[in-house]
Amino acid sequence: MGGDHGPAVTLPACKAFLAAHPQAELMLVGRAKALAAAAGWPRCTIVEASEVVEMHDPLEVSLRRKKDSSMRIAIGLVKPDATGTAIAQACVSAGNTGALMALSRYVLKTLEGIDRPAIASVMPNERDGYTTVLDLGANVDCTADHLLQFAVMGSALVSAVEGKANPSVGLLNIGEEAIKGSEAVRDAATLLRAAAASGQLNFHGNVEGNDIFKGTTDIVVCDGFVGNVMLKSAEGLASMLSSFIKQEFKRNVLTKMAAIVALPVLNHFKARVDYRRYNGAALLGLRGLVFKSHGSADAFAFEQALNRAYDAARNGLLARVHDKILGALAAIPPTEATAALINASQAADTTLSA
Amino acid sequence: MGGDHGPAVTLPACKAFLAAHPQAELMLVGRAKALAAAAGWPRCTIVEASEVVEMHDPLEVSLRRKKDSSMRIAIGLVKPDATGTAIAQACVSAGNTGALMALSRYVLKTLEGIDRPAIASVMPNERDGYTTVLDLGANVDCTADHLLQFAVMGSALVSAVEGKANPSVGLLNIGEEAIKGSEAVRDAATLLRAAAASGQLNFHGNVEGNDIFKGTTDIVVCDGFVGNVMLKSAEGLASMLSSFIKQEFKRNVLTKMAAIVALPVLNHFKARVDYRRYNGAALLGLRGLVFKSHGSADAFAFEQALNRAYDAARNGLLARVHDKILGALAAIPPTEATAALINASQAADTTLSA
Repeated sequence: MGGDHGPAVTLPACKAFLAAHPQAELMLVGRAKALAAAAGWPRCTIVEASEVVEMHDPLEVSLRRKKDSSMRIAIGLVKPDATGTAIAQACVSAGNTGALMALSRYVLKTLEGIDRPAIASVMPNERDGYTTVLDLGANVDCTADHLLQFAVMGSALVSAVEGKANPSVGLLNIGEEAIKGSEAVRDAATLLRAAAASGQLNFHGNVEGNDIFKGTTDIVVCDGFVGNVMLKSAEGLASMLSSFIKQEFKRNVLTKMAAIVALPVLNHFKARVDYRRYNGAALLGLRGLVFKSHGSADAFAFEQALNRAYDAARNGLLARVHDKILGALAAIPPTEATAALINASQAADTTLSA
Repeated sequence: MGGDHGPAVTLPACKAFLAAHPQAELMLVGRAKALAAAAGWPRCTIVEASEVVEMHDPLEVSLRRKKDSSMRIAIGLVKPDATGTAIAQACVSAGNTGALMALSRYVLKTLEGIDRPAIASVMPNERDGYTTVLDLGANVDCTADHLLQFAVMGSALVSAVEGKANPSVGLLNIGEEAIKGSEAVRDAATLLRAAAASGQLNFHGNVEGNDIFKGTTDIVVCDGFVGNVMLKSAEGLASMLSSFIKQEFKRNVLTKMAAIVALPVLNHFKARVDYRRYNGAALLGLRGLVFKSHGSADAFAFEQALNRAYDAARNGLLARVHDKILGALAAIPPTEATAALINASQAADTTLSA
């Protein structure tokens, strides 16, 4: 039901997705009337919901008032029961991001060892591949522990969706030297090195903003504030350059003729950097798979989000995140703060027993 | 002496600058031999220095060991004497950024009311103008007070260099709603609104990453970590897109022919987004004007940095920053923390006198 266009976009995307994946099954959650066109589709069930979270609804409304919203019901479908099985394996929404994150946290809860879920998405890079970046805006003011958890979740995502056994992780910083950056980032580097030393992670070291587009590492980890600014700045720059190039080709009769000649090349270029191909951000760290499509997605873009969710579910992303995070936490020596606490409590015990 | 190319680039830039500005005078600081070509130029003095800060020198070396470096001497030339006058009005360097900032802070000190200097530079925007962004990497972990100081310094810079009487300021955040963002950013919004209410600033409100390239506000204020990641990501994205477009036009004979036809249009586009035009970052908040050119600048780019420094000096940037910061600080009600301190001290006074 969600996104700027609703079923007008999501239904054609679902139809194309079903045709491309003969093993896949879809459950469409929403108002029966809006989804009527899908009645009778093979491998497709319609789940009725009486309410819809609107793009401008405050969190309060989506969490407390609209208890029968399509978003809430869809998230509920991926929640495991007492035996650990869920009705659906992944949930995809183009709706309100804040509501999707809040409802997912409320309905699904976070995985063991994860304090905060993160939003991960891919950006194109010069190697004609993707760089997975997280967090893109779910968390501001992250601690070193959070950044470590993001690294582990990002590694699990890339190994599940892209089939890379040991993807490399870069820590976003403002210089390659270890002394640079904020305290949280410097401490995160220490934790990441410890996790790498024990074989739990493939930590490359610090990376800078340009490394995202160079493709220096498979994964780039950062605070949600920094990630969100980076993502939106990149979108803004790409949109400015695209509008400039259009203006230049429309300048006069000669440039318009040049545009006709250059059109096939420009279209090829456009397809290569088409942001729609990267649609489908993962909400990682929850006890269920939830993917977020851009609200403005068209049918092609929404289908990519369905593909990403499908690949993640097929390749056991949930179990991978779970195993990886427990492995990483076990491998990391207690932080200084924890060590101090342990010492203090031992000292107290000694005093008490003496 | 600085930058990747040294006098091979800086000398031709200086020559062109002198020719373009008949009122300007230059002092070239460096090894006499390296600057010999400039001997005898009108309105140009050579100041000898026996040492040079190298691009890879650790801070320690530039601060403590190379006391006769060209960088240190050049900065010293803009330091006001006891009567408030300096030998030169602005210093421009293409050298090591960390050394330039550290030496500038050490030699010049910060202005009254400024805790930390910031690095400000311009980015192109869709309105065919510039957006001034600061801080671009001098400070990580900024407080609300620092962000307010950046806003004031940025306003002074834009009014001095671009002649805008009351430039608008946006606070970089991850959503337009006031409740979003980290604590420091939320508190900064409160301070900025207070400064705006008293007429000291033209505060637009929160902006997002894409607003930098849309040109929503004249100035965008952020933490140096966020600013540096944004800047380098934008450079990385632009470089990726540029290499992709070249690859597309080189794909085969037909695309190469298309490239010849499209070349004038592409060159016009390239000139429009030419990053060299934006060269010359200001180190703001010091008791003297210091500008930083990109290390990889060519003569055209270095001349732009000279132009920016010249405009800033001519239009009294230093006095503007000084006046604006004192005005803004006077206009802002004490923060809660300050208020609590005042209350506590009053309570203590009452207790003592009773």
